[in-house]
Amino acid sequence: MPPATDAASLDAAIRAARTTHARLAVTLDGAPLAGREVVVAQRDHAFLFGCTGFEQIPLANGEPVTMPAESPEVAELWLDLFNFATLPFYWGRFEPVRGRPDTERLRNAARWFRERGCAVKGHPLAWHTVTADWLLDLSNAEIAEAQVARIRRDLTDFSGLIGMWDVINEVVIMPVFDKYGNGITRLCRDIGRIPMIRMVFDAAREADPTATLLLNDFDMSAAYECLIEGVLEAGVRIDALGLQSHMHQGYWGEEKTLDVIERFSRYGLPLHFTETTLVSGHLMPPEIVDLNDYQIDEWPTTPEGEARQADEITRHYKTLLGHPSVQAITYWDFSDGGWLGAPAGLVRADGTPKPSYQALHDLIKGEWWLSPTTLTTDAAGKAEITGWPGTYEITAAGRSATFTLPATGETTIAL
Amino acid sequence: MPPATDAASLDAAIRAARTTHARLAVTLDGAPLAGREVVVAQRDHAFLFGCTGFEQIPLANGEPVTMPAESPEVAELWLDLFNFATLPFYWGRFEPVRGRPDTERLRNAARWFRERGCAVKGHPLAWHTVTADWLLDLSNAEIAEAQVARIRRDLTDFSGLIGMWDVINEVVIMPVFDKYGNGITRLCRDIGRIPMIRMVFDAAREADPTATLLLNDFDMSAAYECLIEGVLEAGVRIDALGLQSHMHQGYWGEEKTLDVIERFSRYGLPLHFTETTLVSGHLMPPEIVDLNDYQIDEWPTTPEGEARQADEITRHYKTLLGHPSVQAITYWDFSDGGWLGAPAGLVRADGTPKPSYQALHDLIKGEWWLSPTTLTTDAAGKAEITGWPGTYEITAAGRSATFTLPATGETTIAL
Repeated sequence: MPPATDAASLDAAIRAARTTHARLAVTLDGAPLAGREVVVAQRDHAFLFGCTGFEQIPLANGEPVTMPAESPEVAELWLDLFNFATLPFYWGRFEPVRGRPDTERLRNAARWFRERGCAVKGHPLAWHTVTADWLLDLSNAEIAEAQVARIRRDLTDFSGLIGMWDVINEVVIMPVFDKYGNGITRLCRDIGRIPMIRMVFDAAREADPTATLLLNDFDMSAAYECLIEGVLEAGVRIDALGLQSHMHQGYWGEEKTLDVIERFSRYGLPLHFTETTLVSGHLMPPEIVDLNDYQIDEWPTTPEGEARQADEITRHYKTLLGHPSVQAITYWDFSDGGWLGAPAGLVRADGTPKPSYQALHDLIKGEWWLSPTTLTTDAAGKAEITGWPGTYEITAAGRSATFTLPATGETTIAL
Repeated sequence: MPPATDAASLDAAIRAARTTHARLAVTLDGAPLAGREVVVAQRDHAFLFGCTGFEQIPLANGEPVTMPAESPEVAELWLDLFNFATLPFYWGRFEPVRGRPDTERLRNAARWFRERGCAVKGHPLAWHTVTADWLLDLSNAEIAEAQVARIRRDLTDFSGLIGMWDVINEVVIMPVFDKYGNGITRLCRDIGRIPMIRMVFDAAREADPTATLLLNDFDMSAAYECLIEGVLEAGVRIDALGLQSHMHQGYWGEEKTLDVIERFSRYGLPLHFTETTLVSGHLMPPEIVDLNDYQIDEWPTTPEGEARQADEITRHYKTLLGHPSVQAITYWDFSDGGWLGAPAGLVRADGTPKPSYQALHDLIKGEWWLSPTTLTTDAAGKAEITGWPGTYEITAAGRSATFTLPATGETTIAL
């Protein structure tokens, strides 16, 4: 699907597949509001347009702002674009000293996003990287116990605030990860990948049966397919598959992206692009295998890089929206200087938005958004709209109400 | 484990780990043969030292010999080195016309090897490559039925001749194989890898409960690990794991080989190196991903290449023997000019043995072999030997008998 040749047809396909049609029955004080103009305006997307929300944690906690990325102004830019925040639960940082988790700060951050209308995901509950060092002092049985207890505790502590979790991260490599010793690799190697996944999913499911639970990986090869097939055959329920797409080494392009989507959509599960990165500086050299190995002093954003990033982010998001299995995209991360010091942000280190910010805004709040639209109700007070699934506000006769698309059948709106 | 520095200790480790100790109680006409010299000589290995036996099919069927590889002389070289033959059951060649399988020719070939003391394996019963073209005319349900029927038929037809099968080949790539359309990929993509494996293993197990059944793959990455873990979690019994090691692009080296063995030995299953190749000409370029894509007119064997091959085959076999999980090695193939026209043979196209043949002979029938050894029985007619597991002949007083190592406890040998 080369965008140069059929960008218009992709745009039309996205609109046709993603928008929904509804009939509204508007009443005023109980009587049909017949033959009147009403204004309908979209307020939110049902699609999860997300981003890391790590940098808003100080603001949400009333802590001093130490850089523009943490400022209220940048937070406003964030909130004007996204409706879905990923918050960090890396065990080694969340609970560096056993028994002293950073729960309150993260609860404040989750609440801050929730009060602003955003869904929140916790990332991750089990992972071999940035895991707690103190696990190394435990036996494998004790690590398993601590892992399960951690999951139960955190899902309980964040119940009502966080409804979605990357339960376990990068299991394909987990038992054979050989960069450094850690308790999670040791445990996973001992009990096997599927028992590990079953254990953490069982714990999460039991602690919060309402939560959306993800398996997440960066490995887009047949290895992840094999892992997923084994997990599903073993009867473990996965709510959504997390697919990372850190493109520090260059944009995947439409062909690879569609191949990935096609292969992982075979399981009938929602696909979440959980970690999407495009840099606006030079690309990381292709010979780097583990992205974490690339450590440089300065990785500047450049005008040419910013133009490329804006183009690629548009192409990438359109490719993803073009497939019905994709239900969430999280950009990683919002400001430059985050993971690996990469110029991966939509906002520069000085807090100013890049062209990619505007490009994404043009999609999420432009091309894929219903601007205030005037409709005229018929004699029975009815009107029809076509819009993007989400929350809408309707205004007429000096009053307003909200409704949700898609609605089943006819939606009655009482003003 | 660099061989230059501790080759001697590896040799000693192999000997210590692989040899077994037994006490023989020798009787002559029922009375202990006391204080007499007896000669013990190894006749066969319990370890499966194997090779493709494709080129002996014409000879076994009394068909005209068309090239040196098919000659009785080359067959003698084969039989002097190996005790285990792999015969071809590629569906597209075995049964190119539905209902007309090449059963009799293959039965004659299997019988030929069995009569010469060799174990025989059939390869493979299910594979997307070289599968029957006529499957494409069938629905997926009909392909599944034909696949199961083919397995039941062949395991029944070869019962007593072939006791080991590569039941299914290369499942990691099977459902996403995109070189050309074929019925097996279509079916596997539809039902999933694990149901596919369960289906063919159930059919094979039911048809011949005594057979040794292998899962076989070339993918040595975490993908195969994930597949195996899923299959085992799903309760499918695998008797041995097949690991291919076609090294047309260069010898893996000890480090990679040991890493592979270590990762796949975690499942407690015997490891069979099912397809081991080392070329004695130039190496295939590293950028080739699918080895089948490398098609050249001439791929000559060279003196330097033959020296390298002999060195590498020694190192490879020693590395494999050094790990207790490895129970079989099949070299692929015996003569030059087989798969890909590669100079991969132990024997040149003209039928003369290469240095690699001699190197392997020096191991299998030399370093790892008990030459005729004279022992003296004690007053009770007993003697002790240390040898490689296998079949032995004992000679004394002008008579002889055979016995098997390892023996549990004391082995009584009546002359």
